[in-house]
Amino acid sequence: MRLEEIENPSFLKEKNDDELEELAQKIREFLIESCAETGGHIGANLGVVELTLALHRFYNSPEDKFLFDVGHQAYIHKILTGRTKDFKTLRQYKGLSGFPKMSESEHDVWEAGHSSTSLSAALGMAKARDIRNEDYNIVPIIGDGALTGGMALEALNHIGSEKSKMTIILNDNEMSIAPNVGAMHNMFGRIRTNSSYNKFKYDAEELLERIPSVGPSLRDLADKVKDSLKYLVVDGVFFEELGIKYIGPVDGHNFKELQKALESTNNYDGPVIIHVITKKGKGYYHAETDAIGKWHGLGPYKIETGETLGSSGTESWSEYVSNEVFEHALKDKKIVALTPAMPVGSKLTKFQNELPERFFDVGIAEQHAVTMSAGLAAAGMKPYLAIYSTFLQRGYDQVLHDVDRPNLNVFFGIDRSGLVGADGETHHGIFDVSFLMPLPNMTIMMPRDEIEAKLMINFALDYDGPIALRYPRGNVKGLQITERQPIVKGKWEIVDASKEKDAVIISYGPTLDVALEAKEILNKFGIELEVVNARFIKPVDADLLKEYGQSKTPLLIVEEVIETGGLGQYVQSYMLENNFLNSVKTIAIPDVYIEQGSVDKLLIEAGITVENVVKVVQNMVENND
Amino acid sequence: MRLEEIENPSFLKEKNDDELEELAQKIREFLIESCAETGGHIGANLGVVELTLALHRFYNSPEDKFLFDVGHQAYIHKILTGRTKDFKTLRQYKGLSGFPKMSESEHDVWEAGHSSTSLSAALGMAKARDIRNEDYNIVPIIGDGALTGGMALEALNHIGSEKSKMTIILNDNEMSIAPNVGAMHNMFGRIRTNSSYNKFKYDAEELLERIPSVGPSLRDLADKVKDSLKYLVVDGVFFEELGIKYIGPVDGHNFKELQKALESTNNYDGPVIIHVITKKGKGYYHAETDAIGKWHGLGPYKIETGETLGSSGTESWSEYVSNEVFEHALKDKKIVALTPAMPVGSKLTKFQNELPERFFDVGIAEQHAVTMSAGLAAAGMKPYLAIYSTFLQRGYDQVLHDVDRPNLNVFFGIDRSGLVGADGETHHGIFDVSFLMPLPNMTIMMPRDEIEAKLMINFALDYDGPIALRYPRGNVKGLQITERQPIVKGKWEIVDASKEKDAVIISYGPTLDVALEAKEILNKFGIELEVVNARFIKPVDADLLKEYGQSKTPLLIVEEVIETGGLGQYVQSYMLENNFLNSVKTIAIPDVYIEQGSVDKLLIEAGITVENVVKVVQNMVENND
Repeated sequence: MRLEEIENPSFLKEKNDDELEELAQKIREFLIESCAETGGHIGANLGVVELTLALHRFYNSPEDKFLFDVGHQAYIHKILTGRTKDFKTLRQYKGLSGFPKMSESEHDVWEAGHSSTSLSAALGMAKARDIRNEDYNIVPIIGDGALTGGMALEALNHIGSEKSKMTIILNDNEMSIAPNVGAMHNMFGRIRTNSSYNKFKYDAEELLERIPSVGPSLRDLADKVKDSLKYLVVDGVFFEELGIKYIGPVDGHNFKELQKALESTNNYDGPVIIHVITKKGKGYYHAETDAIGKWHGLGPYKIETGETLGSSGTESWSEYVSNEVFEHALKDKKIVALTPAMPVGSKLTKFQNELPERFFDVGIAEQHAVTMSAGLAAAGMKPYLAIYSTFLQRGYDQVLHDVDRPNLNVFFGIDRSGLVGADGETHHGIFDVSFLMPLPNMTIMMPRDEIEAKLMINFALDYDGPIALRYPRGNVKGLQITERQPIVKGKWEIVDASKEKDAVIISYGPTLDVALEAKEILNKFGIELEVVNARFIKPVDADLLKEYGQSKTPLLIVEEVIETGGLGQYVQSYMLENNFLNSVKTIAIPDVYIEQGSVDKLLIEAGITVENVVKVVQNMVENND
Repeated sequence: MRLEEIENPSFLKEKNDDELEELAQKIREFLIESCAETGGHIGANLGVVELTLALHRFYNSPEDKFLFDVGHQAYIHKILTGRTKDFKTLRQYKGLSGFPKMSESEHDVWEAGHSSTSLSAALGMAKARDIRNEDYNIVPIIGDGALTGGMALEALNHIGSEKSKMTIILNDNEMSIAPNVGAMHNMFGRIRTNSSYNKFKYDAEELLERIPSVGPSLRDLADKVKDSLKYLVVDGVFFEELGIKYIGPVDGHNFKELQKALESTNNYDGPVIIHVITKKGKGYYHAETDAIGKWHGLGPYKIETGETLGSSGTESWSEYVSNEVFEHALKDKKIVALTPAMPVGSKLTKFQNELPERFFDVGIAEQHAVTMSAGLAAAGMKPYLAIYSTFLQRGYDQVLHDVDRPNLNVFFGIDRSGLVGADGETHHGIFDVSFLMPLPNMTIMMPRDEIEAKLMINFALDYDGPIALRYPRGNVKGLQITERQPIVKGKWEIVDASKEKDAVIISYGPTLDVALEAKEILNKFGIELEVVNARFIKPVDADLLKEYGQSKTPLLIVEEVIETGGLGQYVQSYMLENNFLNSVKTIAIPDVYIEQGSVDKLLIEAGITVENVVKVVQNMVENND
């Protein structure tokens, strides 16, 4: 059977373990080859080949509901539900999503991208089922890393008391993106060490359940024995304490063990957790021996050597910013660095290795990361929290209530600001300006290049109060570092002044280059443009805006964030509040969810292009639009 | 000693248990009398009188750091740190805050208002101490309800692996605001039932620690015995599994037990949790016998009868909205209701009692509440999530990523929208419009009165997609319910049309009445005003705005939310994007944190008054401002 011929997973019912082994092999080869071309989350998926096959053989999707937490490990699920042929477009514009997607298949009953959502959603679905008296299974599949996210723990607490039937698959591979951290991780480590995979606690429990119920006293006795047994066999007591039956640990690459564990849930009506041990990258040497998370998700690679293709060139923004902060930290002992599970992604490994006592990887726990930073600041330290824009959304209330309100000295490095490309709609960093802009004490900056970034990092590490530096995905320009004037809070930079200007473009970060290119073209049409670098997104340069107001110069704000709540809207409001009836327009991401694709294509979709800027300015100047 | 004479807690060092008993009695009487006048969180504070005294006797504040989670239980701490005389201004404008406040005292090292922040902040402070090689204690005091908030659990997971010294006081009173729920709550219940307060596990452990360390083999043996003991004595195994030493349970009203428990932490260098059992409302009959949380926090009351004063009159908004939803739920079986720990505050107890299988109090777990709602919606139900505006901040990413992005049918009842009064800066519901407005699929409504609310609830329960109904704190108007035209999505209501209008005021919710009053006054000055009810904050009424644009009518938007990101700013942007150079202004809450006080006083501070509206309109019309 060719993988392309699979339409749905029902054929698996007839397959024995040996046949599944063969199929697993075929899937592995396909994934390694396919992702070598397209890139993708190869490591995470190689780890769950057997697990996904075992689940689809045992359950009946879509009647039974699979919820893949985070979702990047659903490639095998996609293959088994008829999507093999689409893998050549994986994570590309209009192509197959790298995550489950309700619009792609009836087998995708939940979508994600951010971590730790599956348990809450699963309980919602379980309750919907119970209310309607329906009968099927709800099966969230969650990694040990995602399980430490606060929402997942909130859900466990509720699941354990609600007692609705569901089978939670805990995919314990010791890695989220980087190696996992935290006390729960240590606990799982103890379980792995203590137990042989084949010695299941439920063997003993099964035996006890077979004691005939001759009378209440004997049943009581059996219950008591079971209870004490629970605590003699240490494994999983954490979950049992929360009211969730624990089964495992199970070898996640062994079909026989997986099947046995799944079958053991059959006669149990409440929530069960099956602790499955898997190996990330299993079956592909380079991914399997990866210790730092390089193979979690990546671009195209050479299969034989494991060499990644095409992403070389200059330093990444993450690397540049993190190294700058590290250099400051060598001199200033108050500086500490924090990351929620992204020491590798945020390129903080040098900080981690050289200054371990001042470095904290808190795991997938963005809320805690923000408020722990606040605690450090309240105690006189200068915390630098590197966090992806899209994940900072998780800490919104903490930024507001714990950092901004008491005006604490936390420096946020907002990584992956703007469109991020292949990860798509769940991962674009386009909301942060809209949610940070209203916070009274916040300062927000974005550099046009690495020289400016250096100045901004200097500024931020010397600043009193909450301050954020946005920086994009991708690489810095590779400029020679030259001297520039130091920056001043709330002052913008006129990059390209024009005395007889017909219009002004205000922009920041990478889109400033779009503005400068547009200026060149407009110049040929006889339109004189001034270009301003709004390096401080907040506070705005009120003096400069007033100047433009007085001269009635048309203004165009170009930015790579969602339009509503962006700088453009703020400037429009500012002008009107101050009685300036200039023409002020915005080019930004329209208020829709932007899907996956190369950033270039997405920018075209959003209208953030030189051509569009030229067109809009022409209209503003020539038609008084 | 009079309480007013206390300047700092150092005098407690000399006091024996009997003297503390006496002081506790005096403090209780003071609190009951003082709160009878001012209102306040009397129940929570009566429960921790002995605990706070014991803590201040044992530790040295401010060297040792107390972090009061949520913070409303810090009244005794305030008394012991020299603030007794300020209690007559408690929670009033410019008066004593109902929460710890860094600006009030050096003994307040952490501020809160929202729940579950103390453990993260404590770990930050502990790390700052360790990095600087300083030596003092960090003591977060957290309720059993707050402990189930996701951020607190994220912090526990990190604390248990970081091993920094701190003593966590778990104040287990079985209630947060309403009775607590969830598996951890059940677990604490089992501990309370299993143990006599006096049988401490650490008695046994102490014994083991005294075994002389004659050599590694014997120490190993002792460790092994200790380890197995840990699991034979079931209490606290949940925390021990997380790497946190557990001590308790301890009677929180018994000084001897408290002292013994605190002393037992002396020689331990890592994180410890002391499980303290207290009785909310202890020592005041009406509060002590409160089963539903009425005495958690309330206004002035009559001491003898426990009767609350002054808050009668019409139905509260919460009651009105919840009852309407309940009526719909009787007919529509798809409707389910959820609350994060506020069944009483959100007046959902009727729903809870009559339709228990379709009601979910998820505890203090806003993130889970939102995503569980998404799961219910994905499975075809129609969830209604009642949540205070300020607490919805905690679920921002979940609203965006799990509800709005996949466009699911969740109905948010945003309670306490706008200024809330005495709870102050941590509790005002003034950010929700700014963070919901940019979400592409979201619809936001706010009613001018209960008749409109009824129409909106009809609309929302019949609507496909995410939709929010904002409603304020306080009571409905008490109107006779009359027929009104049904509402249409994105269409505003011209409340008071004017043909020859000089200006238009656009407003929604309670501030619409401010606009109508201003119209009356302006009329006397010969200025004709049209007043528009922007019942849909999102989407805006584009047709109407275009009409105003074409006629160049000056517009003023009046709203009780933070200015940046509000409707006003959106309208200003809309007009400019559509080439209308009208004068458009906004009266809203300026971008600062608004502190506590009566809503009337705060509205004056923010400039949201009839007088200011009159003045601004006059300027707009007469001076073309």
